[in-house]
Amino acid sequence: MSADDSNEIDEIMSVTLDQLPLREDLRGRSPYGAPQLDVPVRLNTNENPFPPPAELVDDVASAVREVARNLNRYPDRDAIALRRDLAAYLTSATGVPLTERHVWAANGSNEILQQLLQAFGGPGRSALGFEPSYSMHPIISAGTRTEWVPTPRRDDFTLDAERAAAVVADRAPDIVFVTSPNNPTGGSVPLEDLEAILRAAPGLVVVDEAYAEFSSRPSAVHLLAKFPAKLVVSRTMSKAFAFAGGRLGYLAAAPAVVDALQLVRLPYHLSSLTQAAARAALRHADATLRSVATLAAERDRVAEGLRQLGFEPVPSDANFILFGRFADPTAAWKSYLDSGVLIRDIGIAGHLRVSIGTPDENDAFLQASKEVPR
Amino acid sequence: MSADDSNEIDEIMSVTLDQLPLREDLRGRSPYGAPQLDVPVRLNTNENPFPPPAELVDDVASAVREVARNLNRYPDRDAIALRRDLAAYLTSATGVPLTERHVWAANGSNEILQQLLQAFGGPGRSALGFEPSYSMHPIISAGTRTEWVPTPRRDDFTLDAERAAAVVADRAPDIVFVTSPNNPTGGSVPLEDLEAILRAAPGLVVVDEAYAEFSSRPSAVHLLAKFPAKLVVSRTMSKAFAFAGGRLGYLAAAPAVVDALQLVRLPYHLSSLTQAAARAALRHADATLRSVATLAAERDRVAEGLRQLGFEPVPSDANFILFGRFADPTAAWKSYLDSGVLIRDIGIAGHLRVSIGTPDENDAFLQASKEVPR
Repeated sequence: MSADDSNEIDEIMSVTLDQLPLREDLRGRSPYGAPQLDVPVRLNTNENPFPPPAELVDDVASAVREVARNLNRYPDRDAIALRRDLAAYLTSATGVPLTERHVWAANGSNEILQQLLQAFGGPGRSALGFEPSYSMHPIISAGTRTEWVPTPRRDDFTLDAERAAAVVADRAPDIVFVTSPNNPTGGSVPLEDLEAILRAAPGLVVVDEAYAEFSSRPSAVHLLAKFPAKLVVSRTMSKAFAFAGGRLGYLAAAPAVVDALQLVRLPYHLSSLTQAAARAALRHADATLRSVATLAAERDRVAEGLRQLGFEPVPSDANFILFGRFADPTAAWKSYLDSGVLIRDIGIAGHLRVSIGTPDENDAFLQASKEVPR
Repeated sequence: MSADDSNEIDEIMSVTLDQLPLREDLRGRSPYGAPQLDVPVRLNTNENPFPPPAELVDDVASAVREVARNLNRYPDRDAIALRRDLAAYLTSATGVPLTERHVWAANGSNEILQQLLQAFGGPGRSALGFEPSYSMHPIISAGTRTEWVPTPRRDDFTLDAERAAAVVADRAPDIVFVTSPNNPTGGSVPLEDLEAILRAAPGLVVVDEAYAEFSSRPSAVHLLAKFPAKLVVSRTMSKAFAFAGGRLGYLAAAPAVVDALQLVRLPYHLSSLTQAAARAALRHADATLRSVATLAAERDRVAEGLRQLGFEPVPSDANFILFGRFADPTAAWKSYLDSGVLIRDIGIAGHLRVSIGTPDENDAFLQASKEVPR
């Protein structure tokens, strides 16, 4: 190196985003993501607050050690063993017989959704969702240049199935997203309502069941046999499975859908480590999912606590609660943060969203709620 | 479940890809990927044949055990610690001072390239490459609906820099890919030739240095200070680092490029496991990279062996060799397979590609070469 180091690094630093040939539609945007703050009580990203049991940690570590001996080799590109284990879990959870041919996996359900949009959406195609809902649906649609068709829910955030089916029939989107339980509002969509939407849809219907384990409603997986050419059910291990750090999303669908995704997936997208760790976590599903009942009971306790404090919690089947009313949600969010409780300002007028934590964390949240400005 | 299980599963199986609303441009395509066959000698995907040292395996396992205790939490979305370690490695390897602000990481360099095309390519934009080269460049371009502009190399597979710069100036692509060393042909591109292309390019120039560690040529990282608004250097831990199973690709560029990619990356794209395991592997870089000298010496021995058998190996700076001439490469590939040696039919007339293996594997390959039909 003959150049002066500090000069050199200054040169590389000096270019601004405006000087780069960025796509026009990305100019002025901000990256997606909740603040990652170091706060005592973190109730902002709907994680499972209970750390994995020690046996699971042991099993993940030894499974990873085993595959680490061959890290010089590419992973199984089709992740067959993992998909088989996921199918076995879904079969045991729903009673619907599924095999690895009906299941596809990726690095988080966001990657699943991106692959679906790459294969079935894209330029000249459209995707429709019922808002407010998971904010990544329009973002991933934009990222794949799929036109986004927002459709409002009722004022109480429930889905009017008749109206939803009519809009779908009218707008004829290539993809419909239905989130059940819905994030950030918490309600599930009954199977008969999903059927009405499926009958109306000319293309795919993706039922995003990220929070399915927290709900007592039956899974849309039960409708696969009736709508094999239309229905995709997406799932994640990030929530009930307490595996947010492991990044594992998956879907159940007809094998032809899996074939389609193999045309757009990046080869070797799932590392050996991810495949081994997810399989280890699935072996401990019974232990991990025991937290679901605790969290459902805590959810109901928190909702009741909020009600007693004069708030209006939206009925939730999931591990979070949307609640109001706030004259200034941003000021209220800041007040919670000042009390050491990080919750989520989702951008819905008058409302904030809180994830259900451990009993102690929920107590801290309810305590902070007493002092928050309305 | 009241439905008959086997009937139900038959229904879900019966839909074909033709009945799905797949994008028109994907119809009739096959998934990318070399055959994953269980063969004694696998020399087809340019992996490092030497398994990671025992200390690295131990370190990966204990690092993963540590983060597994918090698997219920999302990973660091910005992967700061990992990017800092990657920057430190690149600085020590090239002498160019880089920080985490100049480095971005993803699940394999394919994901890096996809993010670059999402941010700087896409519909209405174009990407140019010098063929034959890495076949994922046109595939990922197609996946992001970026027009692909193939440009031929010389008949001997080297790059004519003057002509390359003229074509770039004439076609004005939004992105230029230069692979150095080039896969599957093996030659590197000198810095002065890269400069000529960079001067001509109106948009980004992505220098894909997946095999850089095997080459004695200086890295394009040296040109970052001179072309901060144009140059991106992509790298991978899949090859020299013996980390193909861990899926870790990265890039060095101006911080503004990293800012741009944060607008298109899926949030939490890198798992806690991947971040921890890659950092552990980087701590053992000296031990892992010791294999590079062995592989370079073996590459030269294999090339000489091929020459003595009457083949024409293309000069290579990488850990593979393209060689000919075969009247029927597919028949020759099959003959190698019958001898228990899996190499790669890359689709180049008269040629096959062999990855450099352990000395024993290379002996087996040279032995099989004696009997292969020309």
